[in-house]
Amino acid sequence: MKLIRFGEVGKEKCGVQIEGVNYDVSDFVSDYNESFFENEGLKRLQDYLETNTERLTELPRDSRLGAPFSRPSKIVCIGLNYKDHAEETGAAIPAEPIIFMKSTTALIGPNDTVVIPKNSKKTDWEVEFGIVIGQKATYVEEAEALDYVAGYVLHNDISEREFQIERGGTWDKGKGCDTFAPMGPVLTTKDEIPDINNVNLWLKVNGKTYQNGNTKNLIFSVPFIVSYVSQFMTLLPGDVISTGTPAGVGLGFNPPIYLKEGDVIELGADYLGEQRQEVIDYKK
Amino acid sequence: MKLIRFGEVGKEKCGVQIEGVNYDVSDFVSDYNESFFENEGLKRLQDYLETNTERLTELPRDSRLGAPFSRPSKIVCIGLNYKDHAEETGAAIPAEPIIFMKSTTALIGPNDTVVIPKNSKKTDWEVEFGIVIGQKATYVEEAEALDYVAGYVLHNDISEREFQIERGGTWDKGKGCDTFAPMGPVLTTKDEIPDINNVNLWLKVNGKTYQNGNTKNLIFSVPFIVSYVSQFMTLLPGDVISTGTPAGVGLGFNPPIYLKEGDVIELGADYLGEQRQEVIDYKK
Repeated sequence: MKLIRFGEVGKEKCGVQIEGVNYDVSDFVSDYNESFFENEGLKRLQDYLETNTERLTELPRDSRLGAPFSRPSKIVCIGLNYKDHAEETGAAIPAEPIIFMKSTTALIGPNDTVVIPKNSKKTDWEVEFGIVIGQKATYVEEAEALDYVAGYVLHNDISEREFQIERGGTWDKGKGCDTFAPMGPVLTTKDEIPDINNVNLWLKVNGKTYQNGNTKNLIFSVPFIVSYVSQFMTLLPGDVISTGTPAGVGLGFNPPIYLKEGDVIELGADYLGEQRQEVIDYKK
Repeated sequence: MKLIRFGEVGKEKCGVQIEGVNYDVSDFVSDYNESFFENEGLKRLQDYLETNTERLTELPRDSRLGAPFSRPSKIVCIGLNYKDHAEETGAAIPAEPIIFMKSTTALIGPNDTVVIPKNSKKTDWEVEFGIVIGQKATYVEEAEALDYVAGYVLHNDISEREFQIERGGTWDKGKGCDTFAPMGPVLTTKDEIPDINNVNLWLKVNGKTYQNGNTKNLIFSVPFIVSYVSQFMTLLPGDVISTGTPAGVGLGFNPPIYLKEGDVIELGADYLGEQRQEVIDYKK
């Protein structure tokens, strides 16, 4: 299945995408949240669709999409998880996964406007393959890790490089600004992706391709990451782990290229759909 | 006012503490959460208490207390915010606040058991003065910052030093393990503290005092911190910012002293009450 959420910001309703068309299922599901995932919501929705697909209401093509799940308890990110990206930033290949956290207030829909924060000079892009947790995971073994996954989501891990790297402390300072986590358009359930180790990811700014990667080049694999993070914190249903970005971020160029008002970011991944964000400056 | 939450883990109800006695207000308030703070819940509760105090039901003395608010959208922490603590850890005094984030799944009640994580050798304590946000805060000025604060809470910012410092990446890895954020017993509203720059904090392990600090020694003050964090992420009602720990953590001793099964941690702060945690090892 491909889950979507549609409607006004903060008042999104639930839907599904079938063969590229979005349908309303809000009569059946109140929200794609912790309670939904933990109470076998995916299975119940699947059963519902099997008998009701023909009765579903199609959504207008221009419906705004929100993130395909409600605000999770946390967004955990893995840093420098593609060799080519570690190299472009001048960082060593990590011996074990780098973990940082993104404020969940950064979450927006896939085509919402990205706002360059006040006092920012170095706002950058990062296309990522995100994991959505399906059931509570604590000290999970790598061999069982995928049992705890509901599906996957496209994530633009927008990052302010000065806040992240030059302002002291952890990376969290440059990762959680408002609008810095466009997710969606769909949450694609895991059964829909034949090989998570072979998913193409790409990102363009103003029509020019900057990132072109594939999950086969992840240093740490999806099951390893789920198991690893669960050694340090409990993952709840609906939580997101973003697996890192391939080469081609603005910071990697000489001189670096950063986002400015008027830029248009487009990104996509096999099975996960596409996003498009217009960029504006923060105004009081 | 002093807010408390009582009852079984995950099913806490709301109460208030008046002159050291805990009372049930669950008929009036369903939870101390984002919606409560954002919809003038504190004012409504105050009005309710003015006419109903005599009718409140007293709680049994042995009622379990939860954290005095439900799971927030985030727990932001400030690192190395007392000069003596920065010195004991061998770190430089930071030029601006260090921010890190604690997984909200770490939140527990003030007297709940602290679990040393699997594979941990260096679990440590940190008594802290926590700020609870009362209304949505984005790019707040320091002069107005306290308008956005609901009150304050005692926090034991339990930390695994190997995970935090020696395992690569950000501090977040050693800060968000389950049970690593005992908070409470009370959320003390800001009107109850005459001077937030003069609050004593202390912590004992097995009866021996290790930490003895005062918020007058904070490098970055409470209003400065609220304003500062709000430059990097939006703070929501019910969010917590923990302001850092004074000297006397286990890491600061030579050789370092870490928690072990059977230890008892006691901590307290003026106006914020006291906590007591027994420590056990993680068992499968």
